[in-house]
Amino acid sequence: MAPTSRPEMFDAMMQAVIDAGGEPAPIAEAVGLMWADPAAAAEFPGVVEAAPQLEWIQLPYAGIENFADQLDPSKIWTCGKGVYAEPVAEHIIALTLAGFRHLHTSIPATSWPKQQGRNLLGANVTVIGAGGITESLIRLLEPWNTSITVVRRSPGSLDGADRTVSMEGVAGAVATADVVVLAAALTDETRGLVNADFLHAMNDDAWLVNVARGGLVVTDDLVDALTGGTIAGAALDVTDPEPLPDGHPLWELENCIITPHVGNTPEMGLPLIAERVKQNVELWIAEEELIGLVNVEAGY
Amino acid sequence: MAPTSRPEMFDAMMQAVIDAGGEPAPIAEAVGLMWADPAAAAEFPGVVEAAPQLEWIQLPYAGIENFADQLDPSKIWTCGKGVYAEPVAEHIIALTLAGFRHLHTSIPATSWPKQQGRNLLGANVTVIGAGGITESLIRLLEPWNTSITVVRRSPGSLDGADRTVSMEGVAGAVATADVVVLAAALTDETRGLVNADFLHAMNDDAWLVNVARGGLVVTDDLVDALTGGTIAGAALDVTDPEPLPDGHPLWELENCIITPHVGNTPEMGLPLIAERVKQNVELWIAEEELIGLVNVEAGY
Repeated sequence: MAPTSRPEMFDAMMQAVIDAGGEPAPIAEAVGLMWADPAAAAEFPGVVEAAPQLEWIQLPYAGIENFADQLDPSKIWTCGKGVYAEPVAEHIIALTLAGFRHLHTSIPATSWPKQQGRNLLGANVTVIGAGGITESLIRLLEPWNTSITVVRRSPGSLDGADRTVSMEGVAGAVATADVVVLAAALTDETRGLVNADFLHAMNDDAWLVNVARGGLVVTDDLVDALTGGTIAGAALDVTDPEPLPDGHPLWELENCIITPHVGNTPEMGLPLIAERVKQNVELWIAEEELIGLVNVEAGY
Repeated sequence: MAPTSRPEMFDAMMQAVIDAGGEPAPIAEAVGLMWADPAAAAEFPGVVEAAPQLEWIQLPYAGIENFADQLDPSKIWTCGKGVYAEPVAEHIIALTLAGFRHLHTSIPATSWPKQQGRNLLGANVTVIGAGGITESLIRLLEPWNTSITVVRRSPGSLDGADRTVSMEGVAGAVATADVVVLAAALTDETRGLVNADFLHAMNDDAWLVNVARGGLVVTDDLVDALTGGTIAGAALDVTDPEPLPDGHPLWELENCIITPHVGNTPEMGLPLIAERVKQNVELWIAEEELIGLVNVEAGY
């Protein structure tokens, strides 16, 4: 286990290892490395190079782009995939409802606002990405009578989705949506996916919700779309650049809701990642397949 | 059917009557009156007095306090009870998530805000009132792993609630809540229910959500509670007075979210009340019990 700038995550992971029957060991003797500091990616290569005996590396987040160039295929890599899915799916619903229910106009108001709003109940929801967040979103929306279209990279339909289409069908899938949710990993394939063409394919009364990574969106194109009425609004928990700098045009747009990457906060996520580490250490000891395996080739 | 300041509601109700096999008739010859104008309660007594042959009166909203002194027990009275429940339950979730996810601080921000937030997932939800809105809320939250306590007037537990208590137990029921939802009718018994004592019984990190009627809350006591940190925040879709006048202290409180009585908007509600009228006319013709019967004695 690496030293860390997040002592409470270090402590929680250490406890999880012990609870699972694992034995904390110096890095030079360990078979597994639990990387407890999402921020300290720069220290990572040196630590791993100095411990060639490592067989398994557990990364702390679901998105691993900071570690993607370190993925040595001779080792087993796991990440926080799926761990933070439920809080993030909840945040998708919070942001979508905020847009549909016009909280972006009501909250800043200091006078009785105009009555307006629409329902998420029965709405068409298109989700880009078919990972744990999407699975959780489908589960949470089960009683909401929504029609859910999932756009995914790999073939095969997703349980609970009304329609699953491949990336080639993305323009058609967003054209019918009341809300388009970005829940995909940031890869060479998805970087800048939401550009002017994508935004023009959306309905002009639809919302864009991004809880994945800011780099999925071409920010300048989004500013144009929000200013010009190409779409109704955007709710962004992640931005590019992130954090969004003071004075950025998105701050001034009434139809843009920005939250500071809180799909899960450290407080929400800590017990969840600790539980995942515990599960994986138990599985490792039992010589079973680990949860949250990284696809080393695809980089997520 | 009475003339109306809401022509689109008049048209929708008229069409619903015809679709159900009913026959529109002049008021002096009608057996049933579909009152299509929620605002025009002042005209109501005159219309009804001039038509003593009326057997059944359908009111347009779920809350009927504007008509309560007109409830002649020799007639059958129905109202919009349960009709608007699903959109209002959705709005409860929108408001609760807005508070829990700190949208009241993020939306007005023009600089990357502090990371904070908590989950509705797994939270303790206490609902005052056990009508259609509460039933819908329970249904929508079914996959959210919440613990729901319902405080109700009449005895008996409510399907899907984890705990049902009587009004005498209200202080205990709100003490354990992460969010207290007001979804009760406004009656002599419930007016001013949320006073200083009620608010002090709540957790200091809990939110109050009111989608019912502003008169359930003693507004001055709420201002004090929000200013003094007695509770974390309030999200109000209804206020007392309503509309909230310019310059009212609630407008200036960051931890108070106000929406302009849009639990259901006219656009959301119109197809729903029209469907209810159609159902009730069909039931009337079939001589079956109507839906949304008013309890004339209790006044709701």
